[in-house]
Amino acid sequence: MRILGIDPGYAIVGYGVLDFDGRDFSVKGFGAITTSSEIHFDNRLSIIYNDMNDLIEMYKPDAISLEKLYFNTNHTTAIDVAQARGVILLSANRHDVKIYEYTPLQVKNSVVGYGRAEKKQVQEMTRSILKLKEIPKPDDAADALALAITHGHYASSRVFGLN
Amino acid sequence: MRILGIDPGYAIVGYGVLDFDGRDFSVKGFGAITTSSEIHFDNRLSIIYNDMNDLIEMYKPDAISLEKLYFNTNHTTAIDVAQARGVILLSANRHDVKIYEYTPLQVKNSVVGYGRAEKKQVQEMTRSILKLKEIPKPDDAADALALAITHGHYASSRVFGLN
Repeated sequence: MRILGIDPGYAIVGYGVLDFDGRDFSVKGFGAITTSSEIHFDNRLSIIYNDMNDLIEMYKPDAISLEKLYFNTNHTTAIDVAQARGVILLSANRHDVKIYEYTPLQVKNSVVGYGRAEKKQVQEMTRSILKLKEIPKPDDAADALALAITHGHYASSRVFGLN
Repeated sequence: MRILGIDPGYAIVGYGVLDFDGRDFSVKGFGAITTSSEIHFDNRLSIIYNDMNDLIEMYKPDAISLEKLYFNTNHTTAIDVAQARGVILLSANRHDVKIYEYTPLQVKNSVVGYGRAEKKQVQEMTRSILKLKEIPKPDDAADALALAITHGHYASSRVFGLN
């Protein structure tokens, strides 16, 4: 199965594409959609929507693994991330790609095996699991790959019935 | 100018369409987009996006007046409202309709002339300004019409240079 991991945002949307055979992952691509703070917010949403459509049409994922959104102390940022997340969900829906959501805790548990792991440990384990020489850049792409790995692990459990 | 007022949400999106000549408003339509809690959230977003596209294509508004989103105590609801608001913004952007945002305080000041007015007073003044026999139903449509009136008032001030 092909998994597209997405780390949602409005300035940077990280993405990572993995193929998973139930045991091993292979990296198909990763990177970030970026939008400039110089342009109107609705234009930023439109760029994210376009680029998400392009990513889905290019990679044809079977599943999208998306970070679940929680509120932090910066409420204005959280509203804008949620608005961007709305157009990401819309793009997935329009392409009939199933969406799975995971919390940061689930990602840490799945990738590192330890829910209180630090960001750097998650990135290092992501690099190791994917047999990459270096931690993928930007951080948002590494986070997106970690989300894709997490979905692979969940999907290979009996819950999703992949194996 | 034709103004489309939108009260954002994911279960109910209120809308109201007004023509404004700089002095008088005339009501072109109002109502609500509703989505069922029985279906997946991404499908609800897709319905809202479709229906917003239809509304804009049918009424061809010059401006959209949208309630600014703030956080209340229910964070989960606020995230979902923000996600729905994202696809509303996207629909407006795709149709090149300018978006104006107003806080509930601005709406109260503009419609009632009193920032601490109660919801019922806003609805009654909305009915009166629009010369309607009854307060528009549902409440979300009345709120959307109040947002459209607010934009008319702001647009007719020198800030927007309508007059």
